Amino acid sequence: MHIDVLTLFPEMVSGVFNASILQKAQEKNKFSYNLINFRDYTENKHSKVDDYPYGGGAGMVLAPQPIFDAVSAVTKDKSKPRIILMCPQGEPYNQKKAEELAKEEHLVFICGHYEGYDERIRDHLVTDEISIGDYVLTGGELGAMVVIDSVVRLLPDVLGNKESAPEDSFSTGLLEHPHYTRPADFRGMKVPDILLSGDHGKIAQWRRKESLRRTYERRRDLIERENLSEKDLILLDEIQNKYDRR
Amino acid sequence: MHIDVLTLFPEMVSGVFNASILQKAQEKNKFSYNLINFRDYTENKHSKVDDYPYGGGAGMVLAPQPIFDAVSAVTKDKSKPRIILMCPQGEPYNQKKAEELAKEEHLVFICGHYEGYDERIRDHLVTDEISIGDYVLTGGELGAMVVIDSVVRLLPDVLGNKESAPEDSFSTGLLEHPHYTRPADFRGMKVPDILLSGDHGKIAQWRRKESLRRTYERRRDLIERENLSEKDLILLDEIQNKYDRR
Repeated sequence: MHIDVLTLFPEMVSGVFNASILQKAQEKNKFSYNLINFRDYTENKHSKVDDYPYGGGAGMVLAPQPIFDAVSAVTKDKSKPRIILMCPQGEPYNQKKAEELAKEEHLVFICGHYEGYDERIRDHLVTDEISIGDYVLTGGELGAMVVIDSVVRLLPDVLGNKESAPEDSFSTGLLEHPHYTRPADFRGMKVPDILLSGDHGKIAQWRRKESLRRTYERRRDLIERENLSEKDLILLDEIQNKYDRR
Repeated sequence: MHIDVLTLFPEMVSGVFNASILQKAQEKNKFSYNLINFRDYTENKHSKVDDYPYGGGAGMVLAPQPIFDAVSAVTKDKSKPRIILMCPQGEPYNQKKAEELAKEEHLVFICGHYEGYDERIRDHLVTDEISIGDYVLTGGELGAMVVIDSVVRLLPDVLGNKESAPEDSFSTGLLEHPHYTRPADFRGMKVPDILLSGDHGKIAQWRRKESLRRTYERRRDLIERENLSEKDLILLDEIQNKYDRR
């Protein structure tokens, strides 16, 4: 996979690319990246990337020319890439979208910075608009890095055993059960007895129930009853009954 | 505001702190930050921060001792901070939470990395658990930076006029209307006539309708009819009727 990031602040994201899993994935030749400052593609003499909005109003708007030409430069001679605009108006990002993007060979991210995009970029250039959540950020860079991190870790052989295990959340559809490690008594705070019992059947059931409980308590929206086993539904009923009795 | 970030990968986030708005905000003394590698607080001779899970299973779990002691070190002598655990099980982050955190004087972020946290960290140490979205990341660092970016930009006098304007999305509850800037004809792609008309009343109405239309098309979940004016409701009916006729 090759990833191009168009940004006015390349120094903001290079540290993220050069640490942890993203660094390891590059060392394993699983992906390569390039940071493009689209200011380098301006055709005006002051290297301006933005201009006042037609129709008036506060704020500036990113002009089409530098972004169209920067995208054109990174996509020529390449198979059809996904061209992704990071913006609050985009489709809400989720794990399913990460899995979809992980199948692509070439991703191009366009990161604006506290400004609107000229609408012609949306209408005639990009293939996807993505929002990572319903909050306001100063630019698209962090959003692009979030998407890139979540996509690259899905590429084959990027994660080792150590990294890939406890990711129940969102892959099973439920939040993870609690984890505990040594010491069994940390300054008076104790690990539940059942985890020290050695009874693997009971431990598995406890974990499943705690996973259901946590999801029920925190993210009832994630529970899809039709995807639960009969055993799960019995556990869930126990949890709900306990709540109803309170 | 002071921000402490506990992470095993400080090099991943320092670039983000030293660019754009976060850098400017520090120059204006609006906030300060410190990166703490909690590996420095381990009491075991191999500086291990994790261990096997009680009850068996794959993956490793971040042990309580280094994180408890690192938090203790950054919070002594300080007024009660918010201690925030970045994790997929946390409450979904949104703009309201950003506004809440922007009122605090001291934020401490705990960033795990592809591992579970010992549950005692949740139960006895943190004040908040936050998830930035329903996707799997390799660590909490990007999430913490997302939260920090969205909070710091809300601090008084951090944003200038240039940066603060076009942020309709999520603050008005609707997605933004389209923006256009020069040229009026870019390679055959034209700006809508109305924006060149100079009729400010009509332009305002067009923008409001396009904002409603975009929200209706993309994020129907964001439209709360009770918060719309009578004029808005008429525009929305026009948009809906058009869809029904298709």
